[in-house]
Amino acid sequence: MTVYLAEFVGTAILILLGGGVVAGVSLSKSKALGGGWIVVTLGWGMAVAVAVYTVGTVSGAHINPAVTLGLASIGEFDWGLVPGYMAAQLAGAFVGAVLVYLVYFAHWKETDDPGAKLAVFSTSPAVRNPIANIVTEVVGTAMLVLGVLGIGANSGHVTQGDADLSALFSTGIAPLLVGLLVLGIGLSLGGPTGYAINPARDLGPRLAHAVLPIPGKGSSDWGYAWIPVVAPLVGGVMGAWIWKLTGFGG
Amino acid sequence: MTVYLAEFVGTAILILLGGGVVAGVSLSKSKALGGGWIVVTLGWGMAVAVAVYTVGTVSGAHINPAVTLGLASIGEFDWGLVPGYMAAQLAGAFVGAVLVYLVYFAHWKETDDPGAKLAVFSTSPAVRNPIANIVTEVVGTAMLVLGVLGIGANSGHVTQGDADLSALFSTGIAPLLVGLLVLGIGLSLGGPTGYAINPARDLGPRLAHAVLPIPGKGSSDWGYAWIPVVAPLVGGVMGAWIWKLTGFGG
Amino acid sequence: MTVYLAEFVGTAILILLGGGVVAGVSLSKSKALGGGWIVVTLGWGMAVAVAVYTVGTVSGAHINPAVTLGLASIGEFDWGLVPGYMAAQLAGAFVGAVLVYLVYFAHWKETDDPGAKLAVFSTSPAVRNPIANIVTEVVGTAMLVLGVLGIGANSGHVTQGDADLSALFSTGIAPLLVGLLVLGIGLSLGGPTGYAINPARDLGPRLAHAVLPIPGKGSSDWGYAWIPVVAPLVGGVMGAWIWKLTGFGG
Amino acid sequence: MTVYLAEFVGTAILILLGGGVVAGVSLSKSKALGGGWIVVTLGWGMAVAVAVYTVGTVSGAHINPAVTLGLASIGEFDWGLVPGYMAAQLAGAFVGAVLVYLVYFAHWKETDDPGAKLAVFSTSPAVRNPIANIVTEVVGTAMLVLGVLGIGANSGHVTQGDADLSALFSTGIAPLLVGLLVLGIGLSLGGPTGYAINPARDLGPRLAHAVLPIPGKGSSDWGYAWIPVVAPLVGGVMGAWIWKLTGFGG
Repeated sequence: MTVYLAEFVGTAILILLGGGVVAGVSLSKSKALGGGWIVVTLGWGMAVAVAVYTVGTVSGAHINPAVTLGLASIGEFDWGLVPGYMAAQLAGAFVGAVLVYLVYFAHWKETDDPGAKLAVFSTSPAVRNPIANIVTEVVGTAMLVLGVLGIGANSGHVTQGDADLSALFSTGIAPLLVGLLVLGIGLSLGGPTGYAINPARDLGPRLAHAVLPIPGKGSSDWGYAWIPVVAPLVGGVMGAWIWKLTGFGG
Repeated sequence: MTVYLAEFVGTAILILLGGGVVAGVSLSKSKALGGGWIVVTLGWGMAVAVAVYTVGTVSGAHINPAVTLGLASIGEFDWGLVPGYMAAQLAGAFVGAVLVYLVYFAHWKETDDPGAKLAVFSTSPAVRNPIANIVTEVVGTAMLVLGVLGIGANSGHVTQGDADLSALFSTGIAPLLVGLLVLGIGLSLGGPTGYAINPARDLGPRLAHAVLPIPGKGSSDWGYAWIPVVAPLVGGVMGAWIWKLTGFGG
Repeated sequence: MTVYLAEFVGTAILILLGGGVVAGVSLSKSKALGGGWIVVTLGWGMAVAVAVYTVGTVSGAHINPAVTLGLASIGEFDWGLVPGYMAAQLAGAFVGAVLVYLVYFAHWKETDDPGAKLAVFSTSPAVRNPIANIVTEVVGTAMLVLGVLGIGANSGHVTQGDADLSALFSTGIAPLLVGLLVLGIGLSLGGPTGYAINPARDLGPRLAHAVLPIPGKGSSDWGYAWIPVVAPLVGGVMGAWIWKLTGFGG
Repeated sequence: MTVYLAEFVGTAILILLGGGVVAGVSLSKSKALGGGWIVVTLGWGMAVAVAVYTVGTVSGAHINPAVTLGLASIGEFDWGLVPGYMAAQLAGAFVGAVLVYLVYFAHWKETDDPGAKLAVFSTSPAVRNPIANIVTEVVGTAMLVLGVLGIGANSGHVTQGDADLSALFSTGIAPLLVGLLVLGIGLSLGGPTGYAINPARDLGPRLAHAVLPIPGKGSSDWGYAWIPVVAPLVGGVMGAWIWKLTGFGG
């Protein structure tokens, strides 16, 4: 059960700090208001690093169903643990979003724009074009999983061989590098869809948005919600298989 | 006595560089004027890293009563040292604020806004709402202490076991990681209250603001002063206990 | 063949993330629009780090003909592999640019300025002055190769001696440091020409710009295209020889 | 002689990248124009890191007479090498400034403001107040030398004891940390004087400004030139003695 608890806490941290930075730059009267794309992307990058450092040695800190599925698809993670990992990630993301709601409690009624409020919780496309949005999320998530595997193999803090693959990217300097990978993906590929690249990161907070008593909130935009769930899962598997088929892992 | 001197110097450095960056972006004619949230948060993050590198091997570089109390509360720090650590941190924060006053000496009389001058020293809420402000500071400080413990356990530069827990987060790459943790907390959770997350960081400089002959200064806002003292202490203990109860530390 | 595949994939990642960040800050309706120079340079820096982590242990992750030629010129890389490395880098850069085109698919027709579209793919000078532009690219690339060699020698994660020089800058923390080197070059030397400092990075995407059906695209500016190919090759050799002649490598 | 060559090259790199970033954000038509304080400070930080990685294992990479004097003053550096180190640093800074002039060759005549041109080369105070300016530079340089010594002692990549102190901050991850220290000092203490904190960094480029045929240049402001030479030397010695007297180095 400890591994599920770790995924739950890790994903809650991810969303607390990730959703928090969007709240910071978007909600009226926040001291971070107008901080811009560098603040958003660095905030999400540090959110990942902090989450992985906090729980990495316990569960490997996937904190993302697309990572869990991608690893399982190439035989590097036990299929029997997949449902529990994913459920814990989704529940953690929901709780993280509730924490963001509480941390920024005084700012919801100060903010008029319902779109800004939803953006604190879940992603929406800059241009609504399902095929293009799917491509963006697939490529972003493939880059994430391929990069995570590369960092695990090359950051060199653990002797490979019989080492568990998760351990390779969840200890030493690797959690920071994974955070910087997410920073890089956000900076470069986040423009069109806001880079969900993680089904739990998008769906859990969207559920929280739907049920929380946020003053003046608008639609939770369920019409778009399937794309940041399905596309990252496809991308995660693709990224893992690129790694496996190229043989870069040795 | 050397450990108290280290906490004193470490906290003075924290405030010299942390208060300094707020002065830089806020005071008239400063070359950093208008640098924005990325400058403020990165400045505080580097302030932490520099302080911890400078004194880390001597005292563990708590430089924060909430860290000291949190560690003591879970049996990882000697209660007998707690009063001395806290006194040294408060005194160091006061001296650091005096140094900021001196470094920016030529800029106080160039600046009109008394609120900008106070902000160099201590925090104030974006929206004055005691309950909400307390929640924000509690969550931020819990994240700080939980993250510090995770970094200590997972950054892997020291064999755990009989190692002193403080040593785990004060040497090797860990001081940088702790600085980046504070960067992340600032980016994401700093919007509502300016993230004191450290009683000494807020109270010491507020005392300095009250006594220094700052041209055109206004109120030191003592009505708010108890929140950034009490809430971080509560949050620090909560973060330490989350770490202990989840068993993430092994 | 695996080394060529690694150079191909590594350079594709470089351009996916590097071209992507320019698209993000330049194309209409992108969420990163107006992110500024810090976003562009950090995006390219992380692009390098991610690419090197992903393929570094396989091929040494040159991902740049100027690095390949520079190393070969001082006897640190096999001349027989040079043509294959360069061809793989150019092909990878082309494919990376196609991926950028797809990731930002919905944004091309939203954007009016043909210059902004070309800038996603290849560089252009701020002031068109061939001699000055050449000097800028030569100095920037010499700094790149000299810095890469310094990082390899000094970051200390691999025992030097009989170790392959490429391994020195492609594993451990070195890939991050090489990414930060490119961040530094971009911040400081990128103003006049947009820092190609890599023939494949400029020529591959320019070819993609020429052939892709980009709505409302303008000229591919072939008149300038030879400078970011020739000047980086000259600079790369110069940087490698400065390293060799000074004897800094021991 | 190799150590002097290393100090020469290292300081030239420091100024090439440090002066370069100021040119980038200040000179007309530069692509980095208006990049702001985050770009300037990160550019200088990476300039330091790159310079130290390139020459660190050869000379210890002081690249700053205040560091050289500070170390010598506490018996950690050979007085006999001090004059040669300082001369090499000054000459390197001059050459680095000439390289900046060449890299931005096409932009000098595009720029009207003589103050912006001088700022590429040397520092000037935001508010001209000799005593206050001296205090700022003394505190900044004391922080630099104290921080460098702390990083050397605590970053832990080299066993202390009989190790040369310079080696402690010039290899492994330490050069990056020293760069981040300079980033932190710039962010926080750079507002009043533009943080020379290095006599060679200010005087060498000021000499270059005086002799180079820069179109439309103004005064080299020799009236202020002594402050960023004398104050950093005082601060460097103070920082070294704080380190020695507190006994933090063990």
